[in-house]
Amino acid sequence: MSGLVTLTDIEAARDRCKEVFFRTPLVPFLPDPIPQSKRLMLKAESLQPTGAFKLRGAFNKIALSLPQAREHGIVAHSSGNHARAVAWIARSLDLKAVIVMPDTTPDAKVAATLALGAEVVMVTPDERDTRAFELAAEHGYVPIPPYDDESIIAGQGTVGLEILEDAPGVSTVVVPVSGGGLIAGISTAIKSVSPHVRVIGVEPSLAADARESFTTGVRTAWEASHTYRTIADGLRTTCVGELPWRQIQKYVDDIITVSEDEIRDSVRRLALEARLVAEPSGAVAAAAYFHHADGLAEGTTVAVVSGGNVDPSLFVDILSNG
Amino acid sequence: MSGLVTLTDIEAARDRCKEVFFRTPLVPFLPDPIPQSKRLMLKAESLQPTGAFKLRGAFNKIALSLPQAREHGIVAHSSGNHARAVAWIARSLDLKAVIVMPDTTPDAKVAATLALGAEVVMVTPDERDTRAFELAAEHGYVPIPPYDDESIIAGQGTVGLEILEDAPGVSTVVVPVSGGGLIAGISTAIKSVSPHVRVIGVEPSLAADARESFTTGVRTAWEASHTYRTIADGLRTTCVGELPWRQIQKYVDDIITVSEDEIRDSVRRLALEARLVAEPSGAVAAAAYFHHADGLAEGTTVAVVSGGNVDPSLFVDILSNG
Repeated sequence: MSGLVTLTDIEAARDRCKEVFFRTPLVPFLPDPIPQSKRLMLKAESLQPTGAFKLRGAFNKIALSLPQAREHGIVAHSSGNHARAVAWIARSLDLKAVIVMPDTTPDAKVAATLALGAEVVMVTPDERDTRAFELAAEHGYVPIPPYDDESIIAGQGTVGLEILEDAPGVSTVVVPVSGGGLIAGISTAIKSVSPHVRVIGVEPSLAADARESFTTGVRTAWEASHTYRTIADGLRTTCVGELPWRQIQKYVDDIITVSEDEIRDSVRRLALEARLVAEPSGAVAAAAYFHHADGLAEGTTVAVVSGGNVDPSLFVDILSNG
Repeated sequence: MSGLVTLTDIEAARDRCKEVFFRTPLVPFLPDPIPQSKRLMLKAESLQPTGAFKLRGAFNKIALSLPQAREHGIVAHSSGNHARAVAWIARSLDLKAVIVMPDTTPDAKVAATLALGAEVVMVTPDERDTRAFELAAEHGYVPIPPYDDESIIAGQGTVGLEILEDAPGVSTVVVPVSGGGLIAGISTAIKSVSPHVRVIGVEPSLAADARESFTTGVRTAWEASHTYRTIADGLRTTCVGELPWRQIQKYVDDIITVSEDEIRDSVRRLALEARLVAEPSGAVAAAAYFHHADGLAEGTTVAVVSGGNVDPSLFVDILSNG
């Protein structure tokens, strides 16, 4: 691949990976059956085997480097859903996997990664971005970046193809933004097939670097000390990746923000009214529908529920206290 | 219809209703990707718009009596998922709906039914079974029984057709049993198409009237004071219905029981490992896989997650205390 990721890349990813990840449902949100002028459907990526969309990009990347991955192994840095996806795929393909995790990672997440047979390397947070690449250079591991990679973007874009198949009349697709791989892929798929469909990114207002980048036109980083304030731990990345940024500038219509209270309310409503367990990061797109529907077009909105790996005690707190 | 409900009845229900209820996904349960000799897939009826499978049978029944329903209205007795389904369908078709509820029904459930525009008639528990039929006779309402009706059974059977389409290689299908409408329909569909697939019913051991009926061959009722001990409030019916019983005797391979602790554990695991909100009644089939897999055949087991309308405080208690 070179230049922008294209629809062809995304279709190739779909064909390459279709036996691996789950073709998630588009769940109608219809607590009241009387047609509303604005309807919601939920793309439940939380139902993937590892509980998040990350399997898609990671598998596409690994499949394209399989000979090297089989000979030497793969390496990724992540404490969250990307680590889980990479470890899961490595186990299914019998590959060596090394996961670089910051030494602040909760024990439960380390244990889950070890349980999938991956080797875990703990680093200080400032080594996190470099250590995986050092290990790759040293041992010949294939690096599997979380978002700033064309094959990863193409893999995540398969979500967009499925949305168009299942909701051909969709007006608006709302997608969480962190490093930007998911919205880059989805917006490319959607705009290439149906240019009139609006694609909107959502961030916590406490981690709104992509919103700022989008409004100013200049890719901008926020301090981690700021982005780490949000409960949406999957959306604390301090800056959109360079490759996703190019796709976002071309294909995304807007990036909006939601408050912490709106995120918590959305987690609660998704559990009790849609019966889906969403993590806070996975609930921001639905929060935009629940709390900012005035900014959405008439017709059907699809909100991507990007993941469901919520910390049990946080989930209990949200369900107990609203 | 006369005699047993047949595959033809179920296929007709599917064709009649396919625009109304959601074609729920079969979600792979794969916390570990390495193939197990016994795999689990979850038929997530909890994702129906009203949070339970009950829409299927109720819509089939109402559709078959539409002229009378339009002229006079419909009546049902239920405090739970059947009430919600009937009220939801009535609102979508602009029919008058009367729901007879025991005066012990929690306020939240009454309010939810009123919010859907239904009229609620409160009765003492001992009037519950008769009052709906009296109202039907008096006002010409079409009675929509919860399970003891051929059209209801045929509607619930559409779950079985979908399972066979999505998991053609399934070995075992596990289904909660209460009044028996769901397992009657599913077992009829499955055995008519694929007689080698095993169909297993599951009950709480505290409400095991169907298990007793199945083992003795005599349809047997338990005292409500016994069945009401289980937290699985959707499975407290004291006796399998007469029509479901005929189908069960012909098509079901076994009925097994699970403990209260196993049900709670299953609700917790479905939330945290499959990211599905299940009510206790909806979790009993998965509990059979989690805790009694030795009694299941090799290959793929499909567990029907029949509903997800869990009381929020009970859900919090289960998530907090395991």
